[in-house]
Amino acid sequence: MGPDARPWRFDFAVADDAGGTPRHVQLARALVREIQRGRLAPGARLPGSRTLAASLKLNRKVVVAALDELVAQGWLEALPARGTQVAQSLPAMPVADAQPVRARGARGSTTNAVRFTLNDGIPDARLAPLDVIARAQRRALTTLGRSGLGYSDPAGDPVLREVLAHFVNQARGLACKPEHVLVTRGSQMALSLLALTLVERGDVVAVENPGYVPGWRAFEFAGASILHVPVDAQGLVVDVLEAKAKRLAGRLKAVYVTPHHQYPTTVPLSPERRMQLRALAEKLGFTIIEDDYDYEYHFDGTPLLPLSAAASSRRGTVYVASLSKLIAPAVRLGYIVADSALTARASAVREILDRQGDIVLERAIAELIEDGELQRHARRARQIYRERRDVMLTLLRSDPRLRSMLEVRPPAGGLAFWLSASETVDIRAWAQAAAARGVGLTPGSAHLASGNVRAFRAGFASLTPDELAVVVDLLGASLEETTPTATDRKSSHAPSRRSRRLAG
Amino acid sequence: MGPDARPWRFDFAVADDAGGTPRHVQLARALVREIQRGRLAPGARLPGSRTLAASLKLNRKVVVAALDELVAQGWLEALPARGTQVAQSLPAMPVADAQPVRARGARGSTTNAVRFTLNDGIPDARLAPLDVIARAQRRALTTLGRSGLGYSDPAGDPVLREVLAHFVNQARGLACKPEHVLVTRGSQMALSLLALTLVERGDVVAVENPGYVPGWRAFEFAGASILHVPVDAQGLVVDVLEAKAKRLAGRLKAVYVTPHHQYPTTVPLSPERRMQLRALAEKLGFTIIEDDYDYEYHFDGTPLLPLSAAASSRRGTVYVASLSKLIAPAVRLGYIVADSALTARASAVREILDRQGDIVLERAIAELIEDGELQRHARRARQIYRERRDVMLTLLRSDPRLRSMLEVRPPAGGLAFWLSASETVDIRAWAQAAAARGVGLTPGSAHLASGNVRAFRAGFASLTPDELAVVVDLLGASLEETTPTATDRKSSHAPSRRSRRLAG
Repeated sequence: MGPDARPWRFDFAVADDAGGTPRHVQLARALVREIQRGRLAPGARLPGSRTLAASLKLNRKVVVAALDELVAQGWLEALPARGTQVAQSLPAMPVADAQPVRARGARGSTTNAVRFTLNDGIPDARLAPLDVIARAQRRALTTLGRSGLGYSDPAGDPVLREVLAHFVNQARGLACKPEHVLVTRGSQMALSLLALTLVERGDVVAVENPGYVPGWRAFEFAGASILHVPVDAQGLVVDVLEAKAKRLAGRLKAVYVTPHHQYPTTVPLSPERRMQLRALAEKLGFTIIEDDYDYEYHFDGTPLLPLSAAASSRRGTVYVASLSKLIAPAVRLGYIVADSALTARASAVREILDRQGDIVLERAIAELIEDGELQRHARRARQIYRERRDVMLTLLRSDPRLRSMLEVRPPAGGLAFWLSASETVDIRAWAQAAAARGVGLTPGSAHLASGNVRAFRAGFASLTPDELAVVVDLLGASLEETTPTATDRKSSHAPSRRSRRLAG
Repeated sequence: MGPDARPWRFDFAVADDAGGTPRHVQLARALVREIQRGRLAPGARLPGSRTLAASLKLNRKVVVAALDELVAQGWLEALPARGTQVAQSLPAMPVADAQPVRARGARGSTTNAVRFTLNDGIPDARLAPLDVIARAQRRALTTLGRSGLGYSDPAGDPVLREVLAHFVNQARGLACKPEHVLVTRGSQMALSLLALTLVERGDVVAVENPGYVPGWRAFEFAGASILHVPVDAQGLVVDVLEAKAKRLAGRLKAVYVTPHHQYPTTVPLSPERRMQLRALAEKLGFTIIEDDYDYEYHFDGTPLLPLSAAASSRRGTVYVASLSKLIAPAVRLGYIVADSALTARASAVREILDRQGDIVLERAIAELIEDGELQRHARRARQIYRERRDVMLTLLRSDPRLRSMLEVRPPAGGLAFWLSASETVDIRAWAQAAAARGVGLTPGSAHLASGNVRAFRAGFASLTPDELAVVVDLLGASLEETTPTATDRKSSHAPSRRSRRLAG
């Protein structure tokens, strides 16, 4: 605590009957109440997490998670190597009321408005190091000088290309040079440039089904026919791809995959399937386009290296990644790693479509990667998102209205769950009921070429634990309303036989 | 002057034999010497332009032009409604030595490096209100809130669309609504989106020849055949277009024109040709794509309104403009004004190619237009560029090695001259000799579909008067080297018969 603050006595006991609310969320709420009551003043230094954990008789991990959440929410400020203090300007929103941040937007009344979107897995822009980026942009302006603000290379800032090459080689096992890197405005532009460079009318591009539809649109727009290949618990079913490819007489130009955490189902492509896919690519001569959209976010175990890491040369594999998932969707920065010839051709297309990128942002991000600043942010965000995943998991598994109707498996990484519902659930009706309660929920069929799937994607990363609690509660209420017979809420809290089968 | 500064006595007399150096440049140099000698300290307030003009017995316009240049170069700072003061941090480069800024870049030695590029007419990024934009971006971050940093409308920030609609209606006589506006990243993306939306394989798009080749590439990339139509002193020769169109049997989908200041020749499309072109568009049913890339920069007389202003509805005319020419090429912001159906289709294409723009920059620019800040910058820049055009004109007409070999007509607007050379000049050899002296010069043939033209585009706006003096001197020396027999330098300073004929 600061020398000028009164000694702070804080009593806190975990309530074990708090309806599944995790301990660190309970602690965070209690701390917010202390701040709101004025017992912790702005600027007051908090005891270290070890001290706090000891005095409250809690696991230190719980304390660290609570402090991290409060830093993320703006109640506390992290002091470099000196713990935390109460923020000088406090958030307007009382977290203790579990009132959603998004309900307080400029639109006024929230009645019938979407207060929460169970998005497809976007990061929490409230955590984004926007000030750090803004300062780096100012420095970049100085470094570039005003004469550096003319026309520049359509392949991107040469400094960023060098830094990215080093970064993906170090962190992801690629073996590329700066000339293999093309900086784009997010992964959508990367996919479009590849499509417009690789595809000729009549070519076929195979995709995962369910899959990332905006990616399909890029290939279709370039004139490709789309071949939909099913996905199972191991990711893309390569046997089916092989069987279908045989009938295409060499027209299969590329296979577009999300091997790290398959979009939307979140499953990693298994090592066997990876080997099988690479062998098939070599045999049939198609290009593997690997969309590694959230490599940073892996929570359990060691992540598999990208497919592109194993390729002995750049030929045959194209790597696509994005920094938008690391920072915020509004910060548009992605990149392609491919062989020099393809990079040069895609760069020529980029010049036609967009002339060049944002040189100031690119140089700023180069500096932040070189200094390890973005990596530090990634580590911090990863920790917070892991906690949020665990909170969401606990909430979903403990809600009596939901736990019997949903198969809830925690994703090993990424920013969303893929929730499968039991047969009695009408997802479309559920989504409508949820919308009436202010929760946006997109049925998983949106990611399918055709037909229906009784599942949906539920992004957890952009919501705080308190917001997640509100959302899960509203989801439960909406589900109960649309499938009243299926609830076992009043009879028992134990999973039904059906849900046990689904989860097995 | 500031209260804490010693009284400043400044004697200055215009030298009428200063080899064509304009009065305001002489004055600016004299003021820089005062600063360098320490007689004017950082922070010292200068007398108002009226006082200074009276005491130095100069026209006030000359004084204002000199002060504007010094503000642009960073020697002085403009005080809002309070005149100017000496900048707190002075530029490293002694302007009085007429040493080029670009030679002092990070690359070290400038021997054989391009020190000046006679570009195709880019603005001076040193004048760009980058601090003002950066501050507006910070405010936009606050206004948008972190929840505003998710995915946004691919057609652009709704606030900017509204502001731009109001702006082009007020300032350029258009009659559009926000839903007619699509915000892009510069005019290149605007042209590509239009091409990919309007053009089907086999369609023909007519363009000016010479013309803006990156625009042609956008239409070709979308599958169009390009029809090249000549340009004369009235702009696009519509008679030729009509004759050629007759043979196309309805395949002419669009005509891409730069009517305000034709690129690269700078001539405005005459009122008669405009009427003729509109009538032909109505008769044949093609779309006019009007690229109004530098409407802000018109120096003499009242500019003609855009073609799109006269169109009674949005149908049949598409308007493309850019803010990059107003600020700096690195600030990528352009827009399309078209009928709602076309805007919606182009917006869907934009979503595939680029998802969305930079919402923070877009909101910031919206604010700066609404506050009149960008318009104020445009007025200031216009005044400076008019002066630089006049300086360039004087320098070209007074250089004994150049004046007999070049036809120098001042453009009524825009940021470049189109310089035609006499028959004895080998432009390619001249360009090589200039490159050896560090001056980049692109022969005008680069803007032609085929063949040669004995002319080239010379951007003046990004160079200060002192830099222009250096460039013109180097151009003269290079020309003399490549065409030694044609110079009349030693015999007489009067224009030769040939040059008088060319200029007539």
